[in-house]
Amino acid sequence: MKRYARLAATLGQRIEQGLYRPGDRLPSVRALSEEHGVSISTVQQAYRVLEDAGLVEPRPKSGFFVPEQRRVPALPAMTRPAQRPVDISQWDQVLEQVRTSPGDNLIQLGRGTPDISSPSLKPLLRAMANAARRSDLRALGYEGIQGSLPLREQIARLMLDSGCRVPPSEIIVTTGCQEALAITLRAICQPGDIVAIDSPSFHGAMQALKAHGLKALEIPTDPVNGVSLEALELAMEQWPVKLIMLTPNCNNPLGYIMPDTRKRALLSLAQRYDVPILEDDVYGELAYAYPRPRSIKSFDSDDRVLLASSFSKTVAPGLRTGWVVPGRYLERILHLKYIASGTCAPQPQMALAEFVGGGHYEPHIRRMRAQYQRHRDLMSDWVSRYFPDGTRASRPQGGFMLWVELDPRFDSVRLNQALRPECVQVAAGSIFSASGKYRNCLRMNYSSPELPRIEEAVRRVGAAATRLLEETQALESSPEPA
Amino acid sequence: MKRYARLAATLGQRIEQGLYRPGDRLPSVRALSEEHGVSISTVQQAYRVLEDAGLVEPRPKSGFFVPEQRRVPALPAMTRPAQRPVDISQWDQVLEQVRTSPGDNLIQLGRGTPDISSPSLKPLLRAMANAARRSDLRALGYEGIQGSLPLREQIARLMLDSGCRVPPSEIIVTTGCQEALAITLRAICQPGDIVAIDSPSFHGAMQALKAHGLKALEIPTDPVNGVSLEALELAMEQWPVKLIMLTPNCNNPLGYIMPDTRKRALLSLAQRYDVPILEDDVYGELAYAYPRPRSIKSFDSDDRVLLASSFSKTVAPGLRTGWVVPGRYLERILHLKYIASGTCAPQPQMALAEFVGGGHYEPHIRRMRAQYQRHRDLMSDWVSRYFPDGTRASRPQGGFMLWVELDPRFDSVRLNQALRPECVQVAAGSIFSASGKYRNCLRMNYSSPELPRIEEAVRRVGAAATRLLEETQALESSPEPA
Repeated sequence: MKRYARLAATLGQRIEQGLYRPGDRLPSVRALSEEHGVSISTVQQAYRVLEDAGLVEPRPKSGFFVPEQRRVPALPAMTRPAQRPVDISQWDQVLEQVRTSPGDNLIQLGRGTPDISSPSLKPLLRAMANAARRSDLRALGYEGIQGSLPLREQIARLMLDSGCRVPPSEIIVTTGCQEALAITLRAICQPGDIVAIDSPSFHGAMQALKAHGLKALEIPTDPVNGVSLEALELAMEQWPVKLIMLTPNCNNPLGYIMPDTRKRALLSLAQRYDVPILEDDVYGELAYAYPRPRSIKSFDSDDRVLLASSFSKTVAPGLRTGWVVPGRYLERILHLKYIASGTCAPQPQMALAEFVGGGHYEPHIRRMRAQYQRHRDLMSDWVSRYFPDGTRASRPQGGFMLWVELDPRFDSVRLNQALRPECVQVAAGSIFSASGKYRNCLRMNYSSPELPRIEEAVRRVGAAATRLLEETQALESSPEPA
Repeated sequence: MKRYARLAATLGQRIEQGLYRPGDRLPSVRALSEEHGVSISTVQQAYRVLEDAGLVEPRPKSGFFVPEQRRVPALPAMTRPAQRPVDISQWDQVLEQVRTSPGDNLIQLGRGTPDISSPSLKPLLRAMANAARRSDLRALGYEGIQGSLPLREQIARLMLDSGCRVPPSEIIVTTGCQEALAITLRAICQPGDIVAIDSPSFHGAMQALKAHGLKALEIPTDPVNGVSLEALELAMEQWPVKLIMLTPNCNNPLGYIMPDTRKRALLSLAQRYDVPILEDDVYGELAYAYPRPRSIKSFDSDDRVLLASSFSKTVAPGLRTGWVVPGRYLERILHLKYIASGTCAPQPQMALAEFVGGGHYEPHIRRMRAQYQRHRDLMSDWVSRYFPDGTRASRPQGGFMLWVELDPRFDSVRLNQALRPECVQVAAGSIFSASGKYRNCLRMNYSSPELPRIEEAVRRVGAAATRLLEETQALESSPEPA
């Protein structure tokens, strides 16, 4: 460890142990230089690291301070979606977001990219290069349709942490979680069928409903406890629900973890109505508390839960490597996987098997959890500071997304238009609803380690939001034209 | 170039120029050693290279000879499929084939893997490793949904060779050609629709019909000229055909190239009935004759042809990088691409853009064309030698697959069962028919540079086929049980 990094770690520990309290002034650069016998520039570098991590803040001409207690916005209320089967819209808004490429000059707060610059991913990059250099040229050929066995063995091992005991032969590797979701929907549903979903809900899953001609039945969802079981039961009483699709752990976009008792209750509800559950666990490993939460699949006694996941959020989305545990639908899903995109690329599978099997995954994921938790606090604080009064926000228990709710009259689609000259994009809330609700909400990504850049972007988003809201209010209070 | 390689090249040229004729004895090792001033072992190494390439054959105690004129089996007749819309079956047989993985101890003649061991692919492997090492970490993040622009620019440039002038903005990168086919089918057809196809036809495309609930209308196809336009017109007269799907260039599995006049005639037929065409061009670049054949898309005047292709056969299938030129269906196909698997993996796209853009693609493809043409002649010869009398075979004009037709009573599914202890697999003909026809046919891959190993495998296939056929004949001629 470099000298400045060691010093930063020491100071960071002291702050976290409460030796310095919020608002306290920290020792001067000169004092630390003498205390630790290091150069001035080493101390300055250490402070820069702490500043980037959000642990200290500089005040001009006064030195460095422990930031004031972070402010936390109030939580949004239980959501109130349509609660009847609707066709999915909003593709144009989703497209605007997924069309952007990393070459664009854009601070992209809207997409679900994790921090891919972490040094804990170095072994992965090495493994990718190794895979290309292997003399058996496996990276260039066809893999078997179910995916690489060494990787499926590692996935089976990781799944033990969520309470799931699944043999590698019951795992199918897919092109990211998106393919897993899309083929699972097709395996279970026919066009016209109704799928009950949590709301707000991941836009990729909803657009898959649209493509298959399915209808979404959005269920009210609490930002702390997840989908309302009472509302779900009422809905299932009323409509012929074919499938329940949800993200109980580190929900996207709300960030909650559904308590285990509610997971069990949901499962028995599904049993009572004999409906399968499609569980999206793509963020489950990123829960801030250890051990990670159990999946609904782990309580599954009659093979009714299909679990979809991927390495896109935990390791890197560019690998496009996900999986599905299809339970009783294995044969049908294998067929759909084959016709969807044939076999999966071998190289990322080889690299991931080496990365996970070589023991690099666990330290990486520990580091990411801690980083995202710190960033959640920062992001919440920035929203409190820079957004209009009365703005509410989720309190994520994992992952790296904040859900922000503004005044009901606010329009996040217009916000994105207003942000274009600022080169910032957020995810408009409406893409998380089948029918375009939540237009007064937005989702922001806090994975990036470039904190000053992200804070500046959030500041611009907040300023633009304030401006837009003031305009709306001014229009409303102005006298009607004669 | 190494000394032995230079000598092999010189001798190879002399043989191909006719200086030595079929059946001629070639100069002795000693004579060549003296003539070229090289060591005995250099000459032996050169002869080994020529032997592996099928240009010379050793005869014990007599030296090396130019092989006798290759034997060429007779062509199969025009195919006679059902000619009415049918549901697709045969998934179990396809699965048996795509389930195998490179780790299995199996000589796999059944799958469509090109030669991935060619030294002309070394720059690609370097590019893959480079992509993983790039400091901007692009390989790990999300690409835009339409695919990498530098790669689409290279694809647009390559497509000029087939007579197509398509801007990069009209190309969508997909997870292999399979995804391109699957999403195109969904963009155009509704469950229950009828799709006219050449017959035999690629099993992946047909299984995609099955998954979408579509019916296949198989059209008689000539092993030299392609699909019968007369039969196609009759079929379109009779049935509400929603789409024509075919592989006119280096057809899989028959290997023909449809003449340009017939491509034009097909297009005007499609115009007359106002039906779109899905053209699979995945083998088109591997035509043995230069310049490569034109695509139907290149004659397309009213944006009715959707072209699907990939680098899986020309470069490497493990990259899972294909594309579709969707014409008037661009927006719809972009949506289906997004829901099918999200954005494509960036690393293979970066590596391919570097490989093609760096000028490595053209020499590679020239080399592959020449190699596959030589291997076609060898494979045809082996089929003549080792298969039962009366066996017919296609005469491919490109690609690396031979279609073999045996006695009508022959059963290639039973053949694969019989080949299991021999660790050889072929593609049973029935997977190339919607309804399981062509059970007396099979397809074999001749891409591999390991010629002695492949010849031995073909010998075993031929011996097993002979045995099976004799058993069938013996059963038929034996008196009925009392």
